[in-house]
Amino acid sequence: MENVTLSAEKVIDIRFNEVDSMGIVWHGNYAKYFEDAREAFGKKYGLEYLRIYHHGYFAPLVELHFNYKRPLQYQRQARVVVTYRPSNAAKIIFDYEIFDLETGDLAATGHSVQVFVDLNRQLVLQMPDFYDVWKKKNGMK
Amino acid sequence: MENVTLSAEKVIDIRFNEVDSMGIVWHGNYAKYFEDAREAFGKKYGLEYLRIYHHGYFAPLVELHFNYKRPLQYQRQARVVVTYRPSNAAKIIFDYEIFDLETGDLAATGHSVQVFVDLNRQLVLQMPDFYDVWKKKNGMK
Amino acid sequence: MENVTLSAEKVIDIRFNEVDSMGIVWHGNYAKYFEDAREAFGKKYGLEYLRIYHHGYFAPLVELHFNYKRPLQYQRQARVVVTYRPSNAAKIIFDYEIFDLETGDLAATGHSVQVFVDLNRQLVLQMPDFYDVWKKKNGMK
Amino acid sequence: MENVTLSAEKVIDIRFNEVDSMGIVWHGNYAKYFEDAREAFGKKYGLEYLRIYHHGYFAPLVELHFNYKRPLQYQRQARVVVTYRPSNAAKIIFDYEIFDLETGDLAATGHSVQVFVDLNRQLVLQMPDFYDVWKKKNGMK
Repeated sequence: MENVTLSAEKVIDIRFNEVDSMGIVWHGNYAKYFEDAREAFGKKYGLEYLRIYHHGYFAPLVELHFNYKRPLQYQRQARVVVTYRPSNAAKIIFDYEIFDLETGDLAATGHSVQVFVDLNRQLVLQMPDFYDVWKKKNGMK
Repeated sequence: MENVTLSAEKVIDIRFNEVDSMGIVWHGNYAKYFEDAREAFGKKYGLEYLRIYHHGYFAPLVELHFNYKRPLQYQRQARVVVTYRPSNAAKIIFDYEIFDLETGDLAATGHSVQVFVDLNRQLVLQMPDFYDVWKKKNGMK
Repeated sequence: MENVTLSAEKVIDIRFNEVDSMGIVWHGNYAKYFEDAREAFGKKYGLEYLRIYHHGYFAPLVELHFNYKRPLQYQRQARVVVTYRPSNAAKIIFDYEIFDLETGDLAATGHSVQVFVDLNRQLVLQMPDFYDVWKKKNGMK
Repeated sequence: MENVTLSAEKVIDIRFNEVDSMGIVWHGNYAKYFEDAREAFGKKYGLEYLRIYHHGYFAPLVELHFNYKRPLQYQRQARVVVTYRPSNAAKIIFDYEIFDLETGDLAATGHSVQVFVDLNRQLVLQMPDFYDVWKKKNGMK
């Protein structure tokens, strides 16, 4: 049985204050764009921060990676596509692509890895039940 | 009896990402510089956020004002001077001056007003006891 | 003859990273929301930064003021209304109101003042021609 | 002949506004800390952005990676160590470690890769002369 592909996207207005003295979006701001896309994914598929919290977990980032391909300009919009990467570990892994909405150019790619910690901030290595249910409900083996 | 003048200062390295496409510090970042100076004041005179909290209060900003005089450049340092403005109200009022450390030019002025709310976020109009003690201890009538 | 009222508005998704450890939007982020609204105004009425620049001017902020009324929460949206305040000086003055989109509560008010400088960054005290034209075209005496 | 190890470090005051609603530094802010360290390296070894620019190049980031180990708290300071990673490619590669200054705990690691583009923003695959000179001067084969 094949895994389905779960993905979401978010269109982002680039802010004047996100642009640096080179006239392009400062690289550190892409973390905001990834997070916006992650939230859009959470809303679409029922995996929001608050829902995870209500199940007794936080899901902090442990890894974040960016590949910058082409600069993003002020006065443009960014389209961020986030895709869930299936894994057997107790992790939430996303791949990202950021496009210039106007030109369609790929501006950046990246990925993030989140783990689960309990409300005392202790790492949880076992798959949380709610996450197992979520995965099955969303077509994962 | 005259009030004493209480003031503190903080030297700040201007970050590359705080500079906009005009090559000058983006105006919204001055709120960070004011806050840095406010914290330096809190440490110097025992009026930190955490200390206020331990007395049962938060001190949210209700007013914040900036006058921009001359731009701040990347590769420079900003010197922020914060001065306590005495008042009979249950408020914490600060005046600020930001200087270019190298040239000594006045880059901006401003002020902030904080009120007290209790831990249920209800506004407290009476002078909190701890604040009254703090004021007397610091030479205010 | 009465002046017309020119105003624009912008709905803003509050970002996770704009919220502080108190769980509310950090006060300095309101400068971004004001700027977003100012840009929406510029697009609606033809007074964008780039258009001003093409006429040979920059319009830096010289004054920025915030009154904070009620905190903005994460997971909410902010609605920012920006209104042009007519003046006979060579200035662009805006008044702002920020509302919680869900509750309709007024979260903050404020204003900004911009002046004109030429491309050598020298202050221009006379009304620029293009701005005079813009004002007349938009119903100002 | 062995390569020498070039490294620099920077101590950073964690700002109130860099902390999220979990009470820890928001992950995206680490890009600022890395950049602060990179600048400290540039000053120490003569590889600043402006110097690179004066030689006719920009050095944009093409890759940025973070591994988050332990959260950083407000009221603490971060110590960022940046180490130059020798390479035969026309790239500037740095490795980073962020420590909690008080506890000495390792909070995060990461790396960045920069390439050279000319002033027309065209990628330069050959080693720029100035960079070759810089590498030799700093003990690299």
